[in-house]
Amino acid sequence: MADAKLVMELRNRTGAGVVDCKNALDEAGGDMEKAIEVLKKKGALKAAKKTAERTTSQGVIATYLHHNHRLASMVEVQSESDFVARNQEFLDFANDIAMQIAAMNPEYVSPESIPEDVKAKQREIFLAETATENKPEDIKQKIVEGKMQKWYAEICLMKQSFFKEDDKTMEDLLNEKIAKIGEKIVIARFARFEMGS
Amino acid sequence: MADAKLVMELRNRTGAGVVDCKNALDEAGGDMEKAIEVLKKKGALKAAKKTAERTTSQGVIATYLHHNHRLASMVEVQSESDFVARNQEFLDFANDIAMQIAAMNPEYVSPESIPEDVKAKQREIFLAETATENKPEDIKQKIVEGKMQKWYAEICLMKQSFFKEDDKTMEDLLNEKIAKIGEKIVIARFARFEMGS
Repeated sequence: MADAKLVMELRNRTGAGVVDCKNALDEAGGDMEKAIEVLKKKGALKAAKKTAERTTSQGVIATYLHHNHRLASMVEVQSESDFVARNQEFLDFANDIAMQIAAMNPEYVSPESIPEDVKAKQREIFLAETATENKPEDIKQKIVEGKMQKWYAEICLMKQSFFKEDDKTMEDLLNEKIAKIGEKIVIARFARFEMGS
Repeated sequence: MADAKLVMELRNRTGAGVVDCKNALDEAGGDMEKAIEVLKKKGALKAAKKTAERTTSQGVIATYLHHNHRLASMVEVQSESDFVARNQEFLDFANDIAMQIAAMNPEYVSPESIPEDVKAKQREIFLAETATENKPEDIKQKIVEGKMQKWYAEICLMKQSFFKEDDKTMEDLLNEKIAKIGEKIVIARFARFEMGS
């Protein structure tokens, strides 16, 4: 059992609750520095769990209609709170995504949303392209992986360069907004119509 | 062979070409009234053929975004000519369709666009509903057919009542526009996003 004085010291240094401090010291065998590490790890886990558990039931739908009336897009961007969904910066962000979709024609939100069979087929194509090259197998695998990443950067919204600031990806932009707004944001779905396609 | 005087009379009465009048009189055995019927039928066939052959490669995409940003729709409406696509009445029509889609939530453009297996499944459900009724088989079939039509009127855009003038269907509205504009018009595809659905 942890010494009550040590528990109070850990509590003062970390701000964690008495029970958490006591458990951390027990786990660390009474070592203060180790106990701090234990608390940090548990804290990070808790935060990740919280993010994963957070539900994005609010949000907005944004549309973009090109001036020639021959190209349009629609996107659903989810937030946790109605308060964020009504914020002008959030609306502007959703409008930027709709414009990005119209301009850059992505097929999927992210690599995770590409069906496994589509991915496997594309990998086979890239493998066939490298088949004639006189290179070791592990190098070929790396080339294929590079081609896959390049392909994701073309067809996945999240991996595309943002058309307004091409030094960042849409994923970078999304993470910026999440950090600034302090809420989980999810790009749930999109659609794009273009005349003659 | 048709008499030249009869050919000229038929031509005067119908405005059809000399060769068409000659052929019609030959087919009608020289009977003027029958020849007029022949010309009418051929004319109708030609018009239907022309409509079927007409390609709608032009048109517009219209979007609708509800003021609460939680509901949006997008529709592609095709015309034959770019001239019609740029006409304000055509644009207004496309905007009305987008609003109809947002408001009335259709699933398909027309009964023809419902997959056969979806139709068959729905017919089975309606058949099961009538199974317990003590009625002759042909009456049951008519009840099922009535239920199918009612179902189409709910889920097919073309069979829905137009939300602005509920005494006409969207199909009526489309046919009005085709008659007025004088071009084939096709509702090619639509999409509808609603938050939480």
